[in-house]
Amino acid sequence: MKATKLLSLGLLLSSALAIPASAKEGMFTPEQLPDIAEQLKEAGLELDPADLTDLTGFPMGAVVSLGGCSASFVSPEGLVVTNHHCARGSVQFNSTAENNYLENGFLAGTKGDELPAAPGSRIYVTTELTDVTDRVREGTLEMGATERYEAIDQRRKDITAECEAEAGFRCLVASFYGGAQYTLIKRLEVRDVRLVYAPADSIGKYGGDIDNWQWPRHTGDFAFYRAYVAPDGSAADFSEDNIPYAPEHHLKVNAAGLDDGDFVMVAGYPGSTNRYTLLAEVENTFGWTYPTFQTLLTQWIETIEEAAPDGSDARVKYESRLAGLNNYEKNLRGQIDGARRVGLVERRREREAGLAEWIREDKARGDYQPAIRELAELSVETATASRTNFWYNNATRPQLLGVAQRLLRLAHERELPNAQRESGYQERDMTFFRQGLQALDRRYDAEVDKAEWVLFLTGYLAQPAAERVAVFDEALGLTAETTADDLPAILNGFYDGTTLGDSETRLAMMEADAATIEASEDPFVKLAVALYEYERALEDEAEERAGRALALRPQYMEAITAWQREEGALPYPDANSTLRITFGNVMGGSPFDGMAYLPFTTLEGITQKDTGEEPFNSPQSQLDLIAAKDYGSYALESIGSVPVNFMSDLDVTGGNSGSATLNAQGELVGLLFDGTFESVNSDWDFDPRTTRSIHVDSRYMLWVMEKVDGAQNLIDEMDVVR
Amino acid sequence: MKATKLLSLGLLLSSALAIPASAKEGMFTPEQLPDIAEQLKEAGLELDPADLTDLTGFPMGAVVSLGGCSASFVSPEGLVVTNHHCARGSVQFNSTAENNYLENGFLAGTKGDELPAAPGSRIYVTTELTDVTDRVREGTLEMGATERYEAIDQRRKDITAECEAEAGFRCLVASFYGGAQYTLIKRLEVRDVRLVYAPADSIGKYGGDIDNWQWPRHTGDFAFYRAYVAPDGSAADFSEDNIPYAPEHHLKVNAAGLDDGDFVMVAGYPGSTNRYTLLAEVENTFGWTYPTFQTLLTQWIETIEEAAPDGSDARVKYESRLAGLNNYEKNLRGQIDGARRVGLVERRREREAGLAEWIREDKARGDYQPAIRELAELSVETATASRTNFWYNNATRPQLLGVAQRLLRLAHERELPNAQRESGYQERDMTFFRQGLQALDRRYDAEVDKAEWVLFLTGYLAQPAAERVAVFDEALGLTAETTADDLPAILNGFYDGTTLGDSETRLAMMEADAATIEASEDPFVKLAVALYEYERALEDEAEERAGRALALRPQYMEAITAWQREEGALPYPDANSTLRITFGNVMGGSPFDGMAYLPFTTLEGITQKDTGEEPFNSPQSQLDLIAAKDYGSYALESIGSVPVNFMSDLDVTGGNSGSATLNAQGELVGLLFDGTFESVNSDWDFDPRTTRSIHVDSRYMLWVMEKVDGAQNLIDEMDVVR
Repeated sequence: MKATKLLSLGLLLSSALAIPASAKEGMFTPEQLPDIAEQLKEAGLELDPADLTDLTGFPMGAVVSLGGCSASFVSPEGLVVTNHHCARGSVQFNSTAENNYLENGFLAGTKGDELPAAPGSRIYVTTELTDVTDRVREGTLEMGATERYEAIDQRRKDITAECEAEAGFRCLVASFYGGAQYTLIKRLEVRDVRLVYAPADSIGKYGGDIDNWQWPRHTGDFAFYRAYVAPDGSAADFSEDNIPYAPEHHLKVNAAGLDDGDFVMVAGYPGSTNRYTLLAEVENTFGWTYPTFQTLLTQWIETIEEAAPDGSDARVKYESRLAGLNNYEKNLRGQIDGARRVGLVERRREREAGLAEWIREDKARGDYQPAIRELAELSVETATASRTNFWYNNATRPQLLGVAQRLLRLAHERELPNAQRESGYQERDMTFFRQGLQALDRRYDAEVDKAEWVLFLTGYLAQPAAERVAVFDEALGLTAETTADDLPAILNGFYDGTTLGDSETRLAMMEADAATIEASEDPFVKLAVALYEYERALEDEAEERAGRALALRPQYMEAITAWQREEGALPYPDANSTLRITFGNVMGGSPFDGMAYLPFTTLEGITQKDTGEEPFNSPQSQLDLIAAKDYGSYALESIGSVPVNFMSDLDVTGGNSGSATLNAQGELVGLLFDGTFESVNSDWDFDPRTTRSIHVDSRYMLWVMEKVDGAQNLIDEMDVVR
Repeated sequence: MKATKLLSLGLLLSSALAIPASAKEGMFTPEQLPDIAEQLKEAGLELDPADLTDLTGFPMGAVVSLGGCSASFVSPEGLVVTNHHCARGSVQFNSTAENNYLENGFLAGTKGDELPAAPGSRIYVTTELTDVTDRVREGTLEMGATERYEAIDQRRKDITAECEAEAGFRCLVASFYGGAQYTLIKRLEVRDVRLVYAPADSIGKYGGDIDNWQWPRHTGDFAFYRAYVAPDGSAADFSEDNIPYAPEHHLKVNAAGLDDGDFVMVAGYPGSTNRYTLLAEVENTFGWTYPTFQTLLTQWIETIEEAAPDGSDARVKYESRLAGLNNYEKNLRGQIDGARRVGLVERRREREAGLAEWIREDKARGDYQPAIRELAELSVETATASRTNFWYNNATRPQLLGVAQRLLRLAHERELPNAQRESGYQERDMTFFRQGLQALDRRYDAEVDKAEWVLFLTGYLAQPAAERVAVFDEALGLTAETTADDLPAILNGFYDGTTLGDSETRLAMMEADAATIEASEDPFVKLAVALYEYERALEDEAEERAGRALALRPQYMEAITAWQREEGALPYPDANSTLRITFGNVMGGSPFDGMAYLPFTTLEGITQKDTGEEPFNSPQSQLDLIAAKDYGSYALESIGSVPVNFMSDLDVTGGNSGSATLNAQGELVGLLFDGTFESVNSDWDFDPRTTRSIHVDSRYMLWVMEKVDGAQNLIDEMDVVR
């Protein structure tokens, strides 16, 4: 009777779960690392934490951004590993009916076989961080709100322009702590990116949307790019003369050893979190915006699925949007569930009460009080505005209207000197602007767009008269009597009359001046012209509110972080797509009463899940290897198989995808690619009981490369250690 | 860094799961217990296993059957505890709009307040088992197949009749090992059953259909009946003069101590398993019958939901059928999934090959060979017949046709002496027969019945001509040209013309002779008359096959059990609604790769699940008690809360519902009420890795009684021990 082996399972889990401190909250900036050196050592880091602050040293010099995803160098010849889902656009871009790399995977046998990544693909290597707070903020507290907004915006653009005067670099002035601190981030912009290796979707996207945000997981979410530069080492556009980029540092790949409880850390580029938002915004978001938008997303998805039936050409164009909307809808459901579970609104209310109490305790802190009160009022104001604009914003979603609005805006911005133009309309932005106009061809279908517009306008029409926008009603001919039934007739005129569906037309209009565009008879352009002033007024109002926030929020952040520090916490700024380090341990969890997540999944789990139907259609060769228990040298003894994915308690969010997961020696043991459904609300409130991130194990990656795909050339190129 | 606490979780689970022997296969008959005494001791039983064989001693004397469910005495005054879902019909029967006991629960403050259970409710107390194999089987091997079937059937009826000559007893000759062994089971039939206490649906049915077959579970699936008898102690119909039955033994209720890994056993009445069926039947069932019927069930459920919309009177009548069909559909899905997971067909094929090999090894075993070959052929024949009859059987499902067929059959059977009539048509069956005719009023609606018939006939019409039944086609006027569109017109005549919808008419016809019924102009009766000879022929064919099986299967069972015994296993007969004992341990599990079931759920899990909407609508008073951590004396230290449900590795099936879960001292620690979704296939093939049963913990039962429902009177009546 071996049941005693299980005796302490419940005890172990319940006691571990009773220690919230065991999960590590914090997305720390590199310069914060000396402050948490002790904690890192205690958690198991064997490197000197001080080394991590050197962005050009090891290991941080190996960590890069793809813009939206994270990645890292894993060979001296510029080989970069990231998630399959981060490189999948490039696989798709190179796929044809004859060479369907999505279905079959792609492996370049030699460097000469490597394929150009999708247009716009970039690898950003951070080379320098400079504190520019004083220059950005100087004298702005004395300004009016709009003036402050504009001054700060202009200074950020000026600093960026100066930095980018050096060819081959892309710069950015990032705002931390709600505008209390500004950092100039200088990054080498590798523009010649090539696809080296991606497993088939049936490995790299195994589980698809069904398993998205889910544990247990069995996804081989890895792929390889290579960075190329000009022969002189400078960044350059694609050229056959280019040579592989030689990074100063690259990560070793660990092929053994990681087990339950081990130290892990992730360095990457988390996108955005809302942990410092005020109660009013939380209440509005979870009481109104998220539930309303979640309902709309559900209808939106149905609308596209009906208008672009399975197997149609239109469906191909909308697959990516559908995947995005499904992902978003599931995320919002997770956010709403999570907020209910942790009692987010109540917890935020308590935090604000606690802060107020702390301020009252000491007269010297009295200055914070009016600023926080004003910021709270401003939060209500902002929430009200976003609510009022919700349906108007949806009603102006049609893709060609967006194109017309951007083109008209570009023409107006071009009337200004380049340095003064709005972000997104400067010369430095024109490559992406043009690529955006071109890409429309691959994701636009008039019938589907119209069906979407009918949905949004039906919602708009259902609002009270006070929330309707007169200029929009007038331009579309909407009256108090208009019903949803009238919409198709109204909208047909737009789609029949426009020429913006043609790529040449759109690109040609990039050169047109405002007067020319204003004279256009294209119905979408006419609508954009009609809305132009109204949109500018909305923008002015938003900038005025932002200007006020830029003075108030830094005071609030100063107060709350001082309070948190007194409470023994180490405050860190909300995620903002800049380089952050988070650390913790390999760890299972209990998503809810009576259930436990085990920390590793195994090869056998793939066979268990496999149905032969996408997305559970593992290649037969892989199933055969599993049946034969052909683990090679990659098995983990404690689980008796090759680990496929593992879980940790790291604090991460979107943008961290592709981040290298490092062990105590700074070696790559996996790639972060997802969080659990119960974790998504951690963007608002980190819950150590339920926040778990999901990684693909380096042993599964190497096993697939060696056994399934025969990518021995890449294994040989990397430093694989044990 | 406390993560080390979790370090060994994966290890613990994976090693425990690698030991299949830790789950106990076997539904043992009481007389087998001496054979497994050693194993019981080793597993932790502290009672003398020999005591368990005494059906009138402790603890088995306390175990009773409700016919379809199991139950047990828990006080010297005939108090019986069973599952809420086993007693819910009685709660429903007593509920009115003013006193909605389903919604509010029911508690009798005194014995005088107890309510009559639903008509037909019975408590069966097994008093004696007698081996009657010789008498049943004597000389039958020399008979022809049909003669053998009839002889055995008649002998079983005769033995039953002799046993029931003693008033107040209900007897049964049960067949074991496919007809190798027959046991006469004599049971006191308590006919005055009263409802004592049932918590509200929001506790007793918490989680409803959504949580059915699922873990984690939080269902308070318990309720109390009381057995009443005449003042002289004999079984009697309901009377105010009756007195509580004084059982010879009752179970003590344990209020503390059960923990992960502890010994548990269950004594109850499992309904039916198929562990000895042959390959041909398994292939037919999982390759055709189950998938086909599962698809039909899905359509059937949709049909009812459309014909009886939510909130309609018809829906009320069909709630119970819908719940049953949903349960069945989910069960079939679990069976199909499970068969695929364990490789059922392949395993059965290997077992047959292994048995054949064993027979070949020894010439003395050669006699088994022809019998097994013939049985295999017979299995194919039976499978073919059931496939051919599938759509005809469905096409004759209309409820009033069933009534007409039973009435006509009754009239014919009445032409025979009582002892020779078919089971179900003897005088002893007339009470249930009458109650069945009466109950129709509460579960029949002509429109819904018609919609169901259209569905079934549409399927029937889609079959090849060879599988159509001429007499049925003729009676309904179905030709090769008839399409589904023609059906409503054909069927309207039946529903417009029948008077069988009237309860009085049906009951009156119980007295009619065959000639009178055959002269009836009622369309359903006319159809029944038209089909009568065909149905008898089908029955004759089935009996002929059954007669052959009655000679062959005992030989097969002798061979396979001898082989299994040599392999070190302890064979036990398939479940047949007779008293069985199964034992094992409290134990979590891993339903699939990367996930673990924890062995206990907690009160806090109720709060986690609660949405306020049925079926997750815990009473507010319960939620308040949980929020206040008012655990009373019922908390389990290792989980830090009151355990609600727990899991074990016991080998159980439908019919075991309500069974007392006993600890090593034979005290009641819970009630078995369900298995996990991964377990349902264990009816065909016990898989120790995934088979887990679900119990309501006695501590949750007592906590609800004390804290939520104030049933202190019952707690006082029971022997609660610690």
